[in-house]
Amino acid sequence: MSQGVWRSVLMTGSSRGIGLQLVTQLANSSNRPATIIATARNPAASTALQELSKTHSGLHIVTFDVSSEQSISSASEQVQSIVGNSGLNCLINNAAIGFSTNISTVTPEAMMTMFQVNTVAPLFVTKAFMPLLETAAARSGGMGIHRAAVINMSSVLGSITLNCGDAAKFRSYAYCTSKAALNMVTRCLAADLESSGILCMSLHPGWVRTDMGGPHADLTVEQSVSGILSVLFSLSERDHGEFLDYHGQKLQW
Amino acid sequence: MSQGVWRSVLMTGSSRGIGLQLVTQLANSSNRPATIIATARNPAASTALQELSKTHSGLHIVTFDVSSEQSISSASEQVQSIVGNSGLNCLINNAAIGFSTNISTVTPEAMMTMFQVNTVAPLFVTKAFMPLLETAAARSGGMGIHRAAVINMSSVLGSITLNCGDAAKFRSYAYCTSKAALNMVTRCLAADLESSGILCMSLHPGWVRTDMGGPHADLTVEQSVSGILSVLFSLSERDHGEFLDYHGQKLQW
Repeated sequence: MSQGVWRSVLMTGSSRGIGLQLVTQLANSSNRPATIIATARNPAASTALQELSKTHSGLHIVTFDVSSEQSISSASEQVQSIVGNSGLNCLINNAAIGFSTNISTVTPEAMMTMFQVNTVAPLFVTKAFMPLLETAAARSGGMGIHRAAVINMSSVLGSITLNCGDAAKFRSYAYCTSKAALNMVTRCLAADLESSGILCMSLHPGWVRTDMGGPHADLTVEQSVSGILSVLFSLSERDHGEFLDYHGQKLQW
Repeated sequence: MSQGVWRSVLMTGSSRGIGLQLVTQLANSSNRPATIIATARNPAASTALQELSKTHSGLHIVTFDVSSEQSISSASEQVQSIVGNSGLNCLINNAAIGFSTNISTVTPEAMMTMFQVNTVAPLFVTKAFMPLLETAAARSGGMGIHRAAVINMSSVLGSITLNCGDAAKFRSYAYCTSKAALNMVTRCLAADLESSGILCMSLHPGWVRTDMGGPHADLTVEQSVSGILSVLFSLSERDHGEFLDYHGQKLQW
């Protein structure tokens, strides 16, 4: 089968940080899909996102709270009407929350909230968009964003293997466990979506100077997103079910 | 420093399955600690546990619902009064729930419930017993159950690395993600407890013919627990922060 052209991408958590930069760089990319759907809990509050949509055609803004079943249902209906019979080529589960919770400060509530937003929501968002991803996948062959892909924005902090020794200095119980659990969601989905030709992988964006990453992080958001887009553009069968960083390097689970 | 003798062990989820068998084999072992504390949500309902306590001295039964903060607080007070100044040598976080949730049947509620019981509870139970574990650890050197140890009963189904190909056929979203997240709790705790000399590890009991494992599982509960006890008796520094099966073989995260 011929490789298709990617027609559409949807990002959650697009009002700021990595999500906003992803929308910005994609909207300005020569390799952009015709339809870019930027979603956020409260997109009206993001001036940058509103401005971007005025100057770039095919950029749709949809209000979407990923931890609300009702919002998932309403957003998927809106997206269906935007993408029509082409389906959705790429879903980027980027919305997440993160705050520090060490052994003294962690609470059951902090852990449950992060599981809800960072682990459970990406699974049920993916389930809701599965019919649209399957529609897109049926139009093409191979694996990648030209066909259909689910990108779970994870973190190296979710790597159980790497969370030891010096690398364990950032241990934040709630965040680390929610991202490790998200990585398991990626693996389960990869097994379930393979027969439909839908790629699923976890991506570590690097430690980025955003509201979440803080001012001492390694990377600017531009550097991180530039790397992320290179990885997305080159995804193929070999990356299905894998955990890559923004350089495309494989990470241990 | 001399190696101490293990004086006490506490098990959660002791009313049936692996927990009950652990208590039974420990109570009859020549290598048993003087104090065995068997806890369960509703120990009165377990005839086997009640019978065992009548015929074995030093076997204490404590009512303990691991997912209730109030119960954690009340149980830790009772255990304090049982173990006194010797502290607690070994905490086995065994209580867990498991039911099948595939991509069609999984619900947000199933995922949140399993995170609560299988991931969050073991962390907060461990935090509550930390003072007693530290007391025991201060009396001895080296690492192992003779000093102080936290054993998180995990599962190979929580191995993100191994959850692919044929091995992914059991993918049960809620159970697998909760056990992967528990493994991250083990790694975070291992980093935090190391300076106190408290060992922390994850253990896979095998696929066992219990109410949870079902009738087609590989192992009898006697075989599994016999292996688990051999592993516990031989734990040392090299096992700190690791993931072992009931043969003592290292598993990938």
